[in-house]
Amino acid sequence: MNDYKQLYLDDIQVGQKFSSGSHALDATQIKAFASQYDPQPFHLDEQAAANSFFGGLAASGWHTASVTMRLLVDSGIPIAGGLIGAGCEINWPIATRQSDILTVETEVLNVAASRSRPDRGIVTICSNTRNQAGEVLQVMTAKLVVFRRPAAAQ
Amino acid sequence: MNDYKQLYLDDIQVGQKFSSGSHALDATQIKAFASQYDPQPFHLDEQAAANSFFGGLAASGWHTASVTMRLLVDSGIPIAGGLIGAGCEINWPIATRQSDILTVETEVLNVAASRSRPDRGIVTICSNTRNQAGEVLQVMTAKLVVFRRPAAAQ
Repeated sequence: MNDYKQLYLDDIQVGQKFSSGSHALDATQIKAFASQYDPQPFHLDEQAAANSFFGGLAASGWHTASVTMRLLVDSGIPIAGGLIGAGCEINWPIATRQSDILTVETEVLNVAASRSRPDRGIVTICSNTRNQAGEVLQVMTAKLVVFRRPAAAQ
Repeated sequence: MNDYKQLYLDDIQVGQKFSSGSHALDATQIKAFASQYDPQPFHLDEQAAANSFFGGLAASGWHTASVTMRLLVDSGIPIAGGLIGAGCEINWPIATRQSDILTVETEVLNVAASRSRPDRGIVTICSNTRNQAGEVLQVMTAKLVVFRRPAAAQ
């Protein structure tokens, strides 16, 4: 968990880094997500997965993304008003496996005040999701809508 | 549902289009996804959402992405061997709401044979997720690993 206060646009600088807590996956979680949102054999069944592209049970990339979001919301980066994404780019260099324990490290890449809306800006972050061996499972570059500190909160 | 056969790399051309079936969201689904993967007030509680950036209950972007994946897997684009994503770019132009009925239209943007691995290639698709009013909720450009037709299947 981060010990930071809630951050407004005014508090965020390029190069700032944040580390999340961790989340341990298992086969039950992988299959539960997949059965609802990505019901493909290599996400649902060990035997079918063994004979697939993945060579063993693999989490849906959307599961990795969703667990990453949970870690970001709980402990990843404390944006005042919440994490509001406008869009993102994601890569999954290697598959997420049932024994993986995920953590997310985030770095601020860019901070841009809005020209049309003086109460807000866009913060670009890069969040790397790693397993316990330090292997990068997901690289996400995301644009967040972040508000300026209101006058009363200064 | 599409009435197509399962497609190998050899069957896919730039400009091909595919339409998915539909999925009707509701507040229960939005809150269930959010409570597990994106527990922020504007995804969990109508009252809190009304006073937020979104002005009303909104689905997590990851929920929109996950429902889009379900539609793609069930009826969106019939790739032989399954939908294996290497990465993607996503934008969420407007929020997904509880009354939205989602469909996904996909177009093939690029087909590239692998130089190092002659059994496969990368197909780039653009999938637009729309609601029943035709509003675009999500634009996703994704790179898929797609295999060539094996000799025995020709």
